[in-house]
Amino acid sequence: MDLESSRTKLDRYPARGKHDFATVAAILDEGFFCHVGFVQNGQPFVIPTGYGRKNTVLYIHGSAASRMLTEAAGGIALCVTVTLVDGLVLARAAFHSSVNYRSVLILGQAERVPAHEKLLALKTISDHIVPGRWETQRPVKPEELELTTVLKLEIVEASAKIRTGPPIDDEEDYALPIWAGTLDFSAPAATPNADKRLQPGVVTPAHALRYRRVKG
Amino acid sequence: MDLESSRTKLDRYPARGKHDFATVAAILDEGFFCHVGFVQNGQPFVIPTGYGRKNTVLYIHGSAASRMLTEAAGGIALCVTVTLVDGLVLARAAFHSSVNYRSVLILGQAERVPAHEKLLALKTISDHIVPGRWETQRPVKPEELELTTVLKLEIVEASAKIRTGPPIDDEEDYALPIWAGTLDFSAPAATPNADKRLQPGVVTPAHALRYRRVKG
Repeated sequence: MDLESSRTKLDRYPARGKHDFATVAAILDEGFFCHVGFVQNGQPFVIPTGYGRKNTVLYIHGSAASRMLTEAAGGIALCVTVTLVDGLVLARAAFHSSVNYRSVLILGQAERVPAHEKLLALKTISDHIVPGRWETQRPVKPEELELTTVLKLEIVEASAKIRTGPPIDDEEDYALPIWAGTLDFSAPAATPNADKRLQPGVVTPAHALRYRRVKG
Repeated sequence: MDLESSRTKLDRYPARGKHDFATVAAILDEGFFCHVGFVQNGQPFVIPTGYGRKNTVLYIHGSAASRMLTEAAGGIALCVTVTLVDGLVLARAAFHSSVNYRSVLILGQAERVPAHEKLLALKTISDHIVPGRWETQRPVKPEELELTTVLKLEIVEASAKIRTGPPIDDEEDYALPIWAGTLDFSAPAATPNADKRLQPGVVTPAHALRYRRVKG
């Protein structure tokens, strides 16, 4: 599936751009926090929030952005961007220094998830952020479902951008006695920090003890 | 300095909002990658790029977003958002599960950094992302400076949003035998990965060997 359009084509560094669904999906699946852009009175706003993917649908959680949701539920244009920062690129020249990262940009019209689909949408987001957690939790109450807003966006117009590998310096600069290379970030380690009010005998579940996001 | 406006006031969870410059600056200083939102033909775009702060000025590097810069240099409205994800909040109820994070949202009109200020702007970004690196690099050439676009934005209208601490469940749910707590992310460890074409005898400098971002 090709997600390229005139709006998601890369003008700069086109070699870093990808528009196939598999590449886009892999980046979306490693991340869990997106930056959602929307327009209000001509002013752009960019708000971070959690999300989950199910096939070609992106579910975006609404808790963070009442303003966004009031607008977007009416069918306002959104841009959803997910960025994974893999490292810093320290070239011999400042001009060639960079950041190694993988990002996805999705354009589209978001719609509010209807009542009958909301539980599935929330489970999708939960399974995406902490796999295995949903089944262990107290079931969602109808009034909680009503209070929660979730948006959905079809992934049909998107691009991925990937910068990887060592610095690329000007040929003559390789003779300089300057250290160059990358600073590679490890995937963040997650340490479970139990709530002080746990019931006695409750053990830390595997989804918390061995939490990690896939490092591509 | 108070950065609140009707546009940066928090409608939801106002207790999580901060509008003092010190809080905003501390979050900006710990991060180094922002998401820049701008509007083109009514469509919002959100693009990740590096930045640096000097007092009340945010310098935004242009390499990532030629489209953004073409638009924004004319004085187009931007939103710059920086998000630090500190952990996941696993409540007994899905409804109260959340993410611990600190984010800053800045609104404003960006302008293109004039030629005489560009070197300072690039040094500010470099010092912000890898302190100590700039002085070790091959000096910037005039033609490189010309090819680089940097935007500047005054930090006058902004908000910070902070979610921290354990889950807050419904009182009756604390009696349930469900594990709850937070998954705290450590600051990412950065491993220096030397370029294969280093000159013999070049040692790894402290700015690469002991790189870390301040964890607030």
